[in-house]
Amino acid sequence: MSVEEQIIEMGRRARSIAPRVAGLGAETRNRVLKAMAAALIDRRESILAANTGDCESAEASGLSDAMRDRLRLDRPRIEAMAEGLDRVADLHDPVGTELSVVRRPNGLVIRKVRVPLGVVAVIYESRPNVTADATAVCLKAGNAVILRGGSEASASNAAIFDAMAAAGGATGLPPDAMQFVRTTDRAAVGALLRMDESLDLVIPRGGESLIRAVTEQSRVPVLKHYKGVCHVYVDRAADLDMALAIALDAKCRRPGVCNAMETLLVHDAVADAFLPRLADAMAAEGVEIRGDERAVALLPGATPAAESDWFEEYLDLILAVRVVGDLQAAMDHIDHYGTRHSDVIVTADHDAARHFTSEVDSAAVYVNASCRFTDGAEFGLGAEIGISTDKLHARGPCGIDELTTYKYVIDGTGQVRG
Amino acid sequence: MSVEEQIIEMGRRARSIAPRVAGLGAETRNRVLKAMAAALIDRRESILAANTGDCESAEASGLSDAMRDRLRLDRPRIEAMAEGLDRVADLHDPVGTELSVVRRPNGLVIRKVRVPLGVVAVIYESRPNVTADATAVCLKAGNAVILRGGSEASASNAAIFDAMAAAGGATGLPPDAMQFVRTTDRAAVGALLRMDESLDLVIPRGGESLIRAVTEQSRVPVLKHYKGVCHVYVDRAADLDMALAIALDAKCRRPGVCNAMETLLVHDAVADAFLPRLADAMAAEGVEIRGDERAVALLPGATPAAESDWFEEYLDLILAVRVVGDLQAAMDHIDHYGTRHSDVIVTADHDAARHFTSEVDSAAVYVNASCRFTDGAEFGLGAEIGISTDKLHARGPCGIDELTTYKYVIDGTGQVRG
Repeated sequence: MSVEEQIIEMGRRARSIAPRVAGLGAETRNRVLKAMAAALIDRRESILAANTGDCESAEASGLSDAMRDRLRLDRPRIEAMAEGLDRVADLHDPVGTELSVVRRPNGLVIRKVRVPLGVVAVIYESRPNVTADATAVCLKAGNAVILRGGSEASASNAAIFDAMAAAGGATGLPPDAMQFVRTTDRAAVGALLRMDESLDLVIPRGGESLIRAVTEQSRVPVLKHYKGVCHVYVDRAADLDMALAIALDAKCRRPGVCNAMETLLVHDAVADAFLPRLADAMAAEGVEIRGDERAVALLPGATPAAESDWFEEYLDLILAVRVVGDLQAAMDHIDHYGTRHSDVIVTADHDAARHFTSEVDSAAVYVNASCRFTDGAEFGLGAEIGISTDKLHARGPCGIDELTTYKYVIDGTGQVRG
Repeated sequence: MSVEEQIIEMGRRARSIAPRVAGLGAETRNRVLKAMAAALIDRRESILAANTGDCESAEASGLSDAMRDRLRLDRPRIEAMAEGLDRVADLHDPVGTELSVVRRPNGLVIRKVRVPLGVVAVIYESRPNVTADATAVCLKAGNAVILRGGSEASASNAAIFDAMAAAGGATGLPPDAMQFVRTTDRAAVGALLRMDESLDLVIPRGGESLIRAVTEQSRVPVLKHYKGVCHVYVDRAADLDMALAIALDAKCRRPGVCNAMETLLVHDAVADAFLPRLADAMAAEGVEIRGDERAVALLPGATPAAESDWFEEYLDLILAVRVVGDLQAAMDHIDHYGTRHSDVIVTADHDAARHFTSEVDSAAVYVNASCRFTDGAEFGLGAEIGISTDKLHARGPCGIDELTTYKYVIDGTGQVRG
């Protein structure tokens, strides 16, 4: 069989097993996930051996330090994967939840019930833990899953997958409920993205180029996360100590993640008081600042920002700073340059806060807190398959509920419409 | 300006007014809709005059009777449009509804709040009432709307639009909250479908070819309704009188709509008793029957069905009939040939009913009722913008709630993640 034929066959098998996965029942699904968690611990040594092989190849082929760090497994990382599976098992069961029920005047009872999407494909890059995390979240939501990992992690992914699949098979998971694309041939991705008959959703996890390529090629609906150009706006009524603490947290703690701040906006009335303090604190953290004219004048060491800086997702210790005349100007900036991910207002003015939260069209809008909280675990979802920057279907952190849809189940006693 | 430039400018204006439309408040939105309803009545004569012009052109250009009927307005049809606007005004206000709220251990209060999608484009064919209906549903949900109707109805659509826009403008609707593409140049549709920066959703309303063309070309997310190949399965435990009444309702009352039955499946054990009765009743309604071998033997006048018949959305007085060995065979048939729209089991067996409703993966799954009830009004949604055959975002009848998304509004007291 060609690669394309193999992938089509995987899709066909996933589609045909999907109703059985959906009908497994919470008890079986949770038993399967817990058995998988135990299997990761049991097979730890063979997983580590496979990972050592991947890491040696990665070093030989000159992969960057950052990529090699994402690729590398150790005992704590495997334990964290296993704990993740246990946690997902302990979450509420999304399948079958009644979302609403109405009894119509004609006696029909119309229930809106949460059901699995069906078949989900996950396409990811170098981090092998995605093999475990994504499988758990998809299965918990009652979906069949097809995994396609990065070629640099192929031995690690296969070892993790094999441990989980064996444990699943022994505890009641139907064969083909989870499938792993073993070929590293890139044609496999193209074939997956054309299978709109078999797949209900594809989730790309990785850098912007992967996500863009998947979105552009896919005939299957994509749950995607583009850039996070997140803003903190320091209002004229801000507590400046709080603003400084939030700015430092949002920029410096993990600058390489999507919910880090990229641009700070500050109201003209507090710029004189705030920006010199910001300059000192950011300098101590090694942050490079690029500002508009007024900001540069108040920020020692800052360089002028180009127009392109306001659009930039630095993912690094670089911060763009702009002084704005009022709240509306801050919101206009966010509307024009932002990516509708996470934006913050720091203010003690209740009206300004409500104006900001109602007008700023982002997945998460914060008052007096760091944008770094945009995360499935921090939102209490328990597990996360990604953060959606789309507006349709699901927005912001996506957990198990976001991997479901619903159907209407209508009980009658012979009603006809006439 | 070229057509493309005009459309891009409309999108830019809609995008920029969207926050004001979202923030109007229920009272203003409802006042606007009621004023629009009154305006349709006030301007009834000029709308009818415009429609007469469209109908004369349609006749001269040889449009089919069915198309001309869809195009034609009269006083009752205008009154029905106005009543529709009033009814939408009276619906619950979807904007700002709190969908969930959690207080996290760190004190953050995370509210999930329903918000408008932003800008919705509606592309439709010959029925001018869509101008009023779609505008009402979009505005009620807090969205800006761009309308593009069929060229054969352009004078009627413009007259309806102008009446509504004038009434809206006089009662607080911002200019550009509703826009109408006046050119009949087809390039306008292509331009709309490329505007993923300005549009949040496009809704095609019309025949399968329009929907297919929009889906294939669009960079903007599409809320779409493909075919409805709906099934009625008469179980071995069916009340056969009820089954006959449901089959007649589902096939004969309005054969040309998407929620009409196209295929009837009957359990082998009741085929002898049921099919001759079905044959008589369907013959009296003028229904042509195409059956499998066993069905043809039991149905006087039936002809053998080809494989393609099981996939067919006849939208006509034609019915495909198949005898199946058991419930599983019925569900396998629906899975293979169906379009996941609306499917029915007629049975007195509770277990069979629950098996059917849990395994059949359709937007609406019925027990002992006609599939013709799949409709926004019948489901109690109050208004309908379409019936989605997608699984993501919204499924089945879509009303005002389905034209919204949500955002997370997080209130803190200075929390940082660290």
